[in-house]
Amino acid sequence: MSTTSSLSLTDLRVQYLSGSLTPREVFATIGERIEQYREHNIWIHALTAAELEPYFSKLEQADIRALPLYGIPFAIKDNIDMAGVPTTAACPEFSYIPERSAFVVQRLIDAGAIPVGKSNLDQFATGLVGVRSPYGACKNSFDPSMVSGGSSAGSAVSVALGMASFSLGTDTAGSGRVPACFNNLVGVKPSIGLLSASGMLPACRSLDCITIFALHCDDANTLLAVAEGEDASDAYSRVNPFANQARHYGAWQGPLRIGVLPADQLAFFGHSDYQASYEETITALKEQGVKIIEVDFAPFIEAARLLYEGPWVAERYIATTPMIQDNPEAMLPVIQTIIGGGAKSSAVDAFQAQYRLKALRKAATSVLASVDCLLSPTAGRPYSIDAVNADPIKLNSNLGYYTNYMNLFDLAGVAVPTGFTASGFPFGVTLIGEAFTDRRLLSIANRIQQYFQLPLGKDQGAFQPTAASPVANQQRIAVAVCGAHLQGQPLNWQLTERGGYLLEKTTSAPNYKLYALAGGPPFRPGMVVAPAGEGQAIEVEVWSLPASEFGSFVAGIPAPLGIGKVALTDGSQVSGFICEASGLAGAEDISHFGAWRAYLASK
Amino acid sequence: MSTTSSLSLTDLRVQYLSGSLTPREVFATIGERIEQYREHNIWIHALTAAELEPYFSKLEQADIRALPLYGIPFAIKDNIDMAGVPTTAACPEFSYIPERSAFVVQRLIDAGAIPVGKSNLDQFATGLVGVRSPYGACKNSFDPSMVSGGSSAGSAVSVALGMASFSLGTDTAGSGRVPACFNNLVGVKPSIGLLSASGMLPACRSLDCITIFALHCDDANTLLAVAEGEDASDAYSRVNPFANQARHYGAWQGPLRIGVLPADQLAFFGHSDYQASYEETITALKEQGVKIIEVDFAPFIEAARLLYEGPWVAERYIATTPMIQDNPEAMLPVIQTIIGGGAKSSAVDAFQAQYRLKALRKAATSVLASVDCLLSPTAGRPYSIDAVNADPIKLNSNLGYYTNYMNLFDLAGVAVPTGFTASGFPFGVTLIGEAFTDRRLLSIANRIQQYFQLPLGKDQGAFQPTAASPVANQQRIAVAVCGAHLQGQPLNWQLTERGGYLLEKTTSAPNYKLYALAGGPPFRPGMVVAPAGEGQAIEVEVWSLPASEFGSFVAGIPAPLGIGKVALTDGSQVSGFICEASGLAGAEDISHFGAWRAYLASK
Repeated sequence: MSTTSSLSLTDLRVQYLSGSLTPREVFATIGERIEQYREHNIWIHALTAAELEPYFSKLEQADIRALPLYGIPFAIKDNIDMAGVPTTAACPEFSYIPERSAFVVQRLIDAGAIPVGKSNLDQFATGLVGVRSPYGACKNSFDPSMVSGGSSAGSAVSVALGMASFSLGTDTAGSGRVPACFNNLVGVKPSIGLLSASGMLPACRSLDCITIFALHCDDANTLLAVAEGEDASDAYSRVNPFANQARHYGAWQGPLRIGVLPADQLAFFGHSDYQASYEETITALKEQGVKIIEVDFAPFIEAARLLYEGPWVAERYIATTPMIQDNPEAMLPVIQTIIGGGAKSSAVDAFQAQYRLKALRKAATSVLASVDCLLSPTAGRPYSIDAVNADPIKLNSNLGYYTNYMNLFDLAGVAVPTGFTASGFPFGVTLIGEAFTDRRLLSIANRIQQYFQLPLGKDQGAFQPTAASPVANQQRIAVAVCGAHLQGQPLNWQLTERGGYLLEKTTSAPNYKLYALAGGPPFRPGMVVAPAGEGQAIEVEVWSLPASEFGSFVAGIPAPLGIGKVALTDGSQVSGFICEASGLAGAEDISHFGAWRAYLASK
Repeated sequence: MSTTSSLSLTDLRVQYLSGSLTPREVFATIGERIEQYREHNIWIHALTAAELEPYFSKLEQADIRALPLYGIPFAIKDNIDMAGVPTTAACPEFSYIPERSAFVVQRLIDAGAIPVGKSNLDQFATGLVGVRSPYGACKNSFDPSMVSGGSSAGSAVSVALGMASFSLGTDTAGSGRVPACFNNLVGVKPSIGLLSASGMLPACRSLDCITIFALHCDDANTLLAVAEGEDASDAYSRVNPFANQARHYGAWQGPLRIGVLPADQLAFFGHSDYQASYEETITALKEQGVKIIEVDFAPFIEAARLLYEGPWVAERYIATTPMIQDNPEAMLPVIQTIIGGGAKSSAVDAFQAQYRLKALRKAATSVLASVDCLLSPTAGRPYSIDAVNADPIKLNSNLGYYTNYMNLFDLAGVAVPTGFTASGFPFGVTLIGEAFTDRRLLSIANRIQQYFQLPLGKDQGAFQPTAASPVANQQRIAVAVCGAHLQGQPLNWQLTERGGYLLEKTTSAPNYKLYALAGGPPFRPGMVVAPAGEGQAIEVEVWSLPASEFGSFVAGIPAPLGIGKVALTDGSQVSGFICEASGLAGAEDISHFGAWRAYLASK
């Protein structure tokens, strides 16, 4: 294995395809690193040579090209099932040996990925610190005195330190994002139900997500594409809409409008280094042309508080029953305190909290609709392990300030690194959008990674820029109109009733002819490309329509008109009205007016 | 007022516009009917002459044409606020005088409608019978010994007996549908949040809907259009998507696929007349060409049971706090019994019920996706008032067999009459669809009313058939392809990845030419309308695409191609590929092959 290469999917695949590397060799290196970092308390169970052997021998019979994740090592948070290996949830007395792997684990293995082991976590995924484990506090990859973040602690640190190409975490309140921030990784908290939770031990079953930690967004997109898919056995699994499928990764080019917290809603809990890193991030994004817009985060912050103060802890109680009832002493004291409270709430409390949440969600919806995505620090500050041990509940709670609301609001999030503090500790932000904007967020996160070009993980190599995807933003479509659909003209309502708005008044490229078609009302022009040298510019309006409504607009256009491509004066091409040649019978050439409105005025 | 006319919106408006009738005259007739039917216990408060006067004098200054509901009388269920008049919820001790009218009431009044009064209901909207009221059991409009259905009892009976053109009900478990069935009315249970619930006393706030009773679907559509609209003050209010807006009423022509219960899931509770009416309905629909498909209703029926056996009654407890705690004796004993149970459940119970509901909902989603809508009896049978008084909880529960699940599943429903029993008692069915299919359901219900042509309400005149709307089904779009998008050709994936499927292989009308365009790959044909007498039929495939994805398909087509209209051999026109004339430079006329595939095979 080349010492300069990372474990990123592309780096490994290039070497596997060339025959310069084998999965056995990769796992030999990983084995050395597991030994080297044993004090970090990353693994609850690392697969033995005997347990790994079937994977190697199976891959040796396989066609690399048929397996998108051939020989890719990955870590599994130990609240997700892997067949034949105990699931402990960091509580040995709770441990059980599942017969089947989790839906997502099985899909990854079927695609050629190889599990490295089950990784350490805050017990029962209850925590954001990585310290709450009988297997020892998981140490940060950049500074072993600091927390790794949690609850997906070992999953994050294993990727940052080169023991896995990627890992599976889980995220109910922030567990897939905070550890990404503290270990310089991309952390994808998908929309609830995009990745099946079958075979994941629930934390709050109505909110839980399986997450992905990766070195960069390209890997995360590929992994999501393999792992995602509707699962009839998970009641919370949902169908991924077309606009959020893997093909649309990269499909968010053009100007960006990103919403951020106003200064008085930001909280860094006394950590000036993180505050400075955040401010540098915002400055850099502005320099890249991103439009930064302050929006009101108050409903998000109030919802975040609801999660632990409200009735949702009853879900954790359900998930740990009967142990919480029969043998609570088997849990760490802090976990017992938190989950034990879950039996206290009434259904009345539960519904009243849901009413409040609904009101906050309505406010959040308006905020989200005003921008391409929101952006916040992923965490307000890191803490040392000693500090957390001294004040375990309050400091943990501080880490959820920017994260706890996300699944209550049914949102998607992608954590992405954007810098290092003066002392070299990683810092990152989270991009936030409505459910099933995962690919949009990943696309924007990728643009941010391309801006910052930060080294990967902890000493996992340099970031390698990739060419921007040419795929256009698929959420809205620009359409050039030149006749009855112009502002104030009789068919303009067909645009406005679909949520259309005017983007610009401009002209076409100077190579068109304009005809007044026979028939009507409504009277209609036809715009056609002129023979070379005979055309001229025609006045057009460019309107923006939601892509979801553009189809019915097109379907409603009668012959001989249709929607093709129109060249504008600035050289760009947009969707726009075209006219069949056969429709010009009896039409009048009105090109010399240069505009439909000028022709109408002349009549 | 003409004795042959009904109070339907059109009948009144025609007479108002002609000057042959005034709102004062209409209310004089209504006043007589209120006296005539006083024993029916319809009204808790009918507006006095003094209370009505401001409405009359205001309308006398107004332009009829500017007010879509000019002079339209309507009833308001007495759990919905009207400014200055007590809201009792059929519990005098609970009564309060609201300062503002409910959002929906105000919109109706602003459009010219005039409230007749506040109508009787099952106390706290807790019941499906109309018997549970200190203002007396509301009597059925067809047979005063029978229940009216409830809880929106007076609202339904007032419309059926010609005291209002329409009325507002509410529906948590069936209260907007069961009374429609028993009184020969259309009952619209809109998607949660389509009509704001601001100013409605909650029953189960997460499930409540304001509903509309009307004589026929045309009226219901108009009323919905006036009443609907997002309301920032109601956390459950939602934006109505484009495809569900009033313009799409009527937009569900063509073959219908309707899902029904298998025989062993139907329940008529011993009422052979209702069973016979249901079977006649199904037979008649089949004769009209409707495809009737048996689907599994088990998840719906289990969810219906969850509503009253589960924790949702805690919501009723919240809605009646502090009375249920401080003064429960002010409630009817049956209501006290039911709502009093709401304090018993824990948050653990609430979440566990929601998990079960989620699993059932997933099964229901598949069922709903397989048909245009579902159809069930609205109620399994009617009961006499005496029978309900003798066994108040069990018989009420039987009435919810086909209704209780609907808001738990976040569905839309429209109850529509389809016949009368041998003894002349009305029978009807409910159409059921996903949230925000309200206009689809209303369109199908309208087709059903056109089939059956039943007289309106109780002696409210004959049904007047209206012309079918020419608007096409907007949910999927048929597109003719002739080249690289054909099955097996290189761009066919652009159709399949969007959920497209092949509708038919056919040919165009015999007046096209086919060209092989210059350039490629992918090699592409251009199909153009030929000069008269020079064209021929070209092989095409017609594909069906979801309307929501058609726009991005169109936007991805490069010049000189686009989407316009293509004439098929059967004389119909569908969306299809067209080609700009300028794009034919360098193209080869391949019309004599008659098909792109034949041309490719020749190369």
